[in-house]
Amino acid sequence: MTTADLSSGKLLARKGSKRAVLAGTPFVDEISRLLDCTVEWNVPEGDEFEPIKHVATVRGKARYFLLGERIALNLLARCSGIATAELWLGFRGVIAGTRKTTPGIYTASWARTSFHNADVSLLGFRLVEKYGMIVGGIDPHRFDLSSMIMFKDNHIWSAGSVTAAISRAREVGGFSLLLDVEVRDEEEANEAIAAGADVIMLDNIEGGELVSVARRLRDRWAGKGKKFLLETSGGITEGNLRERAISGIDILSTSSVHQSLQHIDFSLKIQVPPS
Amino acid sequence: MTTADLSSGKLLARKGSKRAVLAGTPFVDEISRLLDCTVEWNVPEGDEFEPIKHVATVRGKARYFLLGERIALNLLARCSGIATAELWLGFRGVIAGTRKTTPGIYTASWARTSFHNADVSLLGFRLVEKYGMIVGGIDPHRFDLSSMIMFKDNHIWSAGSVTAAISRAREVGGFSLLLDVEVRDEEEANEAIAAGADVIMLDNIEGGELVSVARRLRDRWAGKGKKFLLETSGGITEGNLRERAISGIDILSTSSVHQSLQHIDFSLKIQVPPS
Amino acid sequence: MTTADLSSGKLLARKGSKRAVLAGTPFVDEISRLLDCTVEWNVPEGDEFEPIKHVATVRGKARYFLLGERIALNLLARCSGIATAELWLGFRGVIAGTRKTTPGIYTASWARTSFHNADVSLLGFRLVEKYGMIVGGIDPHRFDLSSMIMFKDNHIWSAGSVTAAISRAREVGGFSLLLDVEVRDEEEANEAIAAGADVIMLDNIEGGELVSVARRLRDRWAGKGKKFLLETSGGITEGNLRERAISGIDILSTSSVHQSLQHIDFSLKIQVPPS
Amino acid sequence: MTTADLSSGKLLARKGSKRAVLAGTPFVDEISRLLDCTVEWNVPEGDEFEPIKHVATVRGKARYFLLGERIALNLLARCSGIATAELWLGFRGVIAGTRKTTPGIYTASWARTSFHNADVSLLGFRLVEKYGMIVGGIDPHRFDLSSMIMFKDNHIWSAGSVTAAISRAREVGGFSLLLDVEVRDEEEANEAIAAGADVIMLDNIEGGELVSVARRLRDRWAGKGKKFLLETSGGITEGNLRERAISGIDILSTSSVHQSLQHIDFSLKIQVPPS
Amino acid sequence: MTTADLSSGKLLARKGSKRAVLAGTPFVDEISRLLDCTVEWNVPEGDEFEPIKHVATVRGKARYFLLGERIALNLLARCSGIATAELWLGFRGVIAGTRKTTPGIYTASWARTSFHNADVSLLGFRLVEKYGMIVGGIDPHRFDLSSMIMFKDNHIWSAGSVTAAISRAREVGGFSLLLDVEVRDEEEANEAIAAGADVIMLDNIEGGELVSVARRLRDRWAGKGKKFLLETSGGITEGNLRERAISGIDILSTSSVHQSLQHIDFSLKIQVPPS
Amino acid sequence: MTTADLSSGKLLARKGSKRAVLAGTPFVDEISRLLDCTVEWNVPEGDEFEPIKHVATVRGKARYFLLGERIALNLLARCSGIATAELWLGFRGVIAGTRKTTPGIYTASWARTSFHNADVSLLGFRLVEKYGMIVGGIDPHRFDLSSMIMFKDNHIWSAGSVTAAISRAREVGGFSLLLDVEVRDEEEANEAIAAGADVIMLDNIEGGELVSVARRLRDRWAGKGKKFLLETSGGITEGNLRERAISGIDILSTSSVHQSLQHIDFSLKIQVPPS
Repeated sequence: MTTADLSSGKLLARKGSKRAVLAGTPFVDEISRLLDCTVEWNVPEGDEFEPIKHVATVRGKARYFLLGERIALNLLARCSGIATAELWLGFRGVIAGTRKTTPGIYTASWARTSFHNADVSLLGFRLVEKYGMIVGGIDPHRFDLSSMIMFKDNHIWSAGSVTAAISRAREVGGFSLLLDVEVRDEEEANEAIAAGADVIMLDNIEGGELVSVARRLRDRWAGKGKKFLLETSGGITEGNLRERAISGIDILSTSSVHQSLQHIDFSLKIQVPPS
Repeated sequence: MTTADLSSGKLLARKGSKRAVLAGTPFVDEISRLLDCTVEWNVPEGDEFEPIKHVATVRGKARYFLLGERIALNLLARCSGIATAELWLGFRGVIAGTRKTTPGIYTASWARTSFHNADVSLLGFRLVEKYGMIVGGIDPHRFDLSSMIMFKDNHIWSAGSVTAAISRAREVGGFSLLLDVEVRDEEEANEAIAAGADVIMLDNIEGGELVSVARRLRDRWAGKGKKFLLETSGGITEGNLRERAISGIDILSTSSVHQSLQHIDFSLKIQVPPS
Repeated sequence: MTTADLSSGKLLARKGSKRAVLAGTPFVDEISRLLDCTVEWNVPEGDEFEPIKHVATVRGKARYFLLGERIALNLLARCSGIATAELWLGFRGVIAGTRKTTPGIYTASWARTSFHNADVSLLGFRLVEKYGMIVGGIDPHRFDLSSMIMFKDNHIWSAGSVTAAISRAREVGGFSLLLDVEVRDEEEANEAIAAGADVIMLDNIEGGELVSVARRLRDRWAGKGKKFLLETSGGITEGNLRERAISGIDILSTSSVHQSLQHIDFSLKIQVPPS
Repeated sequence: MTTADLSSGKLLARKGSKRAVLAGTPFVDEISRLLDCTVEWNVPEGDEFEPIKHVATVRGKARYFLLGERIALNLLARCSGIATAELWLGFRGVIAGTRKTTPGIYTASWARTSFHNADVSLLGFRLVEKYGMIVGGIDPHRFDLSSMIMFKDNHIWSAGSVTAAISRAREVGGFSLLLDVEVRDEEEANEAIAAGADVIMLDNIEGGELVSVARRLRDRWAGKGKKFLLETSGGITEGNLRERAISGIDILSTSSVHQSLQHIDFSLKIQVPPS
Repeated sequence: MTTADLSSGKLLARKGSKRAVLAGTPFVDEISRLLDCTVEWNVPEGDEFEPIKHVATVRGKARYFLLGERIALNLLARCSGIATAELWLGFRGVIAGTRKTTPGIYTASWARTSFHNADVSLLGFRLVEKYGMIVGGIDPHRFDLSSMIMFKDNHIWSAGSVTAAISRAREVGGFSLLLDVEVRDEEEANEAIAAGADVIMLDNIEGGELVSVARRLRDRWAGKGKKFLLETSGGITEGNLRERAISGIDILSTSSVHQSLQHIDFSLKIQVPPS
Repeated sequence: MTTADLSSGKLLARKGSKRAVLAGTPFVDEISRLLDCTVEWNVPEGDEFEPIKHVATVRGKARYFLLGERIALNLLARCSGIATAELWLGFRGVIAGTRKTTPGIYTASWARTSFHNADVSLLGFRLVEKYGMIVGGIDPHRFDLSSMIMFKDNHIWSAGSVTAAISRAREVGGFSLLLDVEVRDEEEANEAIAAGADVIMLDNIEGGELVSVARRLRDRWAGKGKKFLLETSGGITEGNLRERAISGIDILSTSSVHQSLQHIDFSLKIQVPPS
């Protein structure tokens, strides 16, 4: 092998990239560590930077650079893309992501054998995507099924009723997990609050109806010792964000802050040693 | 191989076992499924049963029984042992377990490479132990670091102060995770409540002092829109349980409900086919 | 558990989805198989379908539906999104994807310990993304580093020269792997063809220059027994596609056919059994 | 991150711990190595120590301490607990553990796919538990199914007879594995010795009967070139240990030396750097 | 896919294969089971068969046949090759294999992180190779480091002396593991026997010297209550087998019974369904 | 532990080894790195060396030497054995290996769950064996199913016809994978060339017939813009190699260059530190 023993490489934000937020450097540091390389960052995690920026310098064996190059660049491209989304939104309300992240293809096969919910997608790419949200100022919503118990209509049907589902969940989750219940109308919302839900997800309720449902729920339960957050979701886009972000709603959760976003384009150039 | 093609085996609670609660059957069902065997239970999950009870009948190939026998029996012995603890306690307050469960020896090696907290002990035996607590009526406390963020003194020193630690955690955890803060005295408790902690763990505060600290905290924050739970821990045993379970304390957490408990002894006997 | 023993669920393309191509059904079939469920598809793999379409019916235990739901839906959403991209392009030339796909976060840690290139991202999500390209009519380009040897400038510097890099690669790859060499100018292109490259990637050469370089290369090597394909890449978008797709160029490779694409929104609704 | 770059932490045996034997330090060393930390032990592995002892000092990055803290402490607590059991027993005979150790929940799912016995519980916690026995002076008995072939009644029924089971096992195990046969009465014991068993486990034979069976077996086979060990098991407790440990019995095996033991309580305190 | 839904395939011993022993069918059965296929064997495991034999019929989906084909055939080819070796040897003494089997390339990377000996080569191909030995009538010798403790000179130097190494090993291994000690001369052999070794491996002692050393060891320890086996190894080939197999030697261990053996050539032919 | 803290060991080619080529050092370097040891090689990778050669010196902790010893030696023995085969052949034509390499026993179980071809035998020992071929000057042929698409008769039957199989493969493989088609006679060869196959494997065609078929294929397609390689396989041995290596045939592929070869015998001797 004629591989130079100690080389360095420039990590560049490539031509054509727009203004961007850097995110994912701890993952790249770790990949480098595994390859006996080091990374010196010229841009701190979470900072904005301009195109054609010399973002970092990598040092180590050239052959090892190349081993980790594609994974590190793909990861940085996507994580920074998610963190950059916040700039584009330019919105100051509480926006939260979802669990509609990229799974690992192995996780499904482990679903049954591990006795655990197939949603443990940390084996996929969720950890990176949730991390990008945090860097970009987006509320990560729950990480997996261990962080907050959430009922969608499927779960409720499976249990029998909203009240039955909440009661069973409280028994299993104990005092340490919040309960987030997706309801289809005001009646179900009231049933969920009465049963002790911590978060009420008002599904498929929009516009003026959302405003009045939220107000009636607040009024009805005021001073009754029930503490709950109201959440809305479904069909949220850049266009309708302000309309959906009505007062009285605590959380807007949407996969549009982490799905289908522009990647930030990075590349790695080995420094040619002077001959 | 002279292995009989289709045999059956009796799962017995062995001689010498005391009255016990059965827990862990879903795990045993899954192990059986993996070995193309079936289990018919004579005792429902969570029910008490007497010694020398014929608990279940296993059907399948004898060679496959034997493959899964030791794991299934060891698992059932420990899970039922934990679920049985509740009987012994005979106590009606809210008692919660801890994360001082049995780790898997591989998880440590994954700590760094997975970019994740070494505490992801689902790869160890925690899932079974937490499940046993739920069956036994013990609050499982948080399952892992994704379910509630908990600050011990180590984490607070690492961050700088109680307030700094809480502020950073809220940023990362978003709205969906509760914050549980271990404090050393009343002053730290007040700082934590002011900063938005959801649960206050009063460490090393006992007896009369615990009673008065709890009362002063309730009084000081009454009507100020702060909602918090008070938790006590450390040195709780069967002997001092009632003393520690003072009014004003919401949660008693202790590893004594899942560590060092008596195992329930099970065995599997193959039915000898009539010749 | 009150979970119904045998239930069915409708897999729906949700409200708001545009016209789409279904892709990823073999993966969903496999996930279902692992959960002892079955899927009956109303739309064949690769067909277009309308919004709010009842795409498939799932049958099995409700609890198992819920285990695989999130992974299956996320996978289908992204795979179909990639397959749908082709409709949007409406372009009949040879377009190829890249390896800028979603990695698994574990693969990096395996880079060194497996003695294998970190690019073995089959452990991530590449398999699904490449598959979506094929369903959508996009050339998948090479799957991993085992399928065609590709030299980027980093690799060439690491080896010393284009000729040295090709010679070494032929020794290792033998007769069975094509060699694709990224060149920066016409001189390097000629060096690569002379050394036996199978594909010449003309990096950073665009517009009129690309046309004339391609023509001169064809002319120079005509009748000299060298067979090579010409590839262009970098900065290809929907807007400049026709301009880039000049005659004489065999392959346009671009990550825009699989990155940042709209996901297709699917949901699963459990059928409520008549009471 | 404001994490101090180089910190140190005190590993303490906590208030309330009784006199104890330290065991498990090689595992903690390895966990530390994986986290780029070092441990300096003030107590050597296997030594007794007093409560509130400053057992060791950990050095490295505070954030990394916290990653490994819970696994290391849980492991040390249980391993030392097992090693400490010997003190409590205060008995000088040959006492051996069992394979009734804590499994990993994944091992079962590997049972069939690895073509190997589900008992390969090294993936669980057995390695730590067996190691704790050795440190505490308990014979670890066999580690897994590769170390000595042991027939319980289930295996014998599956093979047909004691003689058939031994003959088949010798063929498979060759000269390098001992054969330990669980027999139900003296007749089976004689059959097993005649067939070449190395260890005879006298199951369910107790008290005076055990004494006379052991004597008769010794007498009958004296001078006949058969070498065998006699083992007793089942229902052994601290109370009946001396009664069970009759002369003529070589090994007392019991899960009471590693199940349900008191854990030793450890904690880790970060040293606050002087400001 | 035009894949026939239910096809069958013939597993053939190919043209040119010599007389052979079939071994490895349980592994092929398991591979088939994983692929929802079945295998009907025309030759029982361990039987000899002639070339161009129709060994088995596989049934299932053609696409699944092809998935498992290469692994199943490679495995059968090598396992049967080892089992066939015995025919070729035509020798009736006790011949044992070694641990010089084919490792898995991943096992090395697990050596440290699993706290376990890197020799756990069950992750490689040892299980198949040892199994082939058993089918072929070769003593498998120990399977891994859990089945008999074996000291080579490296281990003895590491411990200090033969006696020290044996003493430490007995402490760790307890009563259930045999100790096999590789000695370089008669003096070390005597030291090992005195210290309680179960097997004495006389390394580098050959011919007449081996005969007399063996006789002197038997004489010296006769009637002294020591039971030991004598083993020889190193440089054993078909040519010198009878010379090495002197009386007084219990075991001849050699990698020549499982390394470098002729593979048995198998192929799979799909049955073309009548059109 | 009295293990010396820093020791060194000699890696020796043992007594009885013939002249050999060293291959596999990068794997041994990696195993050493994982065990915090270093290796200094006295023989460069790919060089020939004499018996009883001091091939390398290992440095590190003696206990760690022993952990990696067996895997490193077994790997080196087999990899060098394959690389040495070329010397023995003494043939200058293009000879290629096959995929009939040693699988890992786990890969089969992953066949279905990974949605990938069971042939991904990198989890077995193929990587080492293919690497040994390259060091020994043998063409490695394709590494796995990602490097060149190869049709055997089974695949063709499964697809329907040679033309259908090629057409489908080109659609999936795109421009980047060569197509190698195994044909049974001249007619199928012509069909495959017409359909665009890159390599034609003439199965079961030998001697004079092979010469004339090759000549007729060359003549028929000369000047028709089809580029193809001719390959022969099946029953190639040292004896018939020259006869099979007729002019007009580009590749001879045979498993005889990597199966059943003599291993090179290595051993590791710890240096005894002077006392």
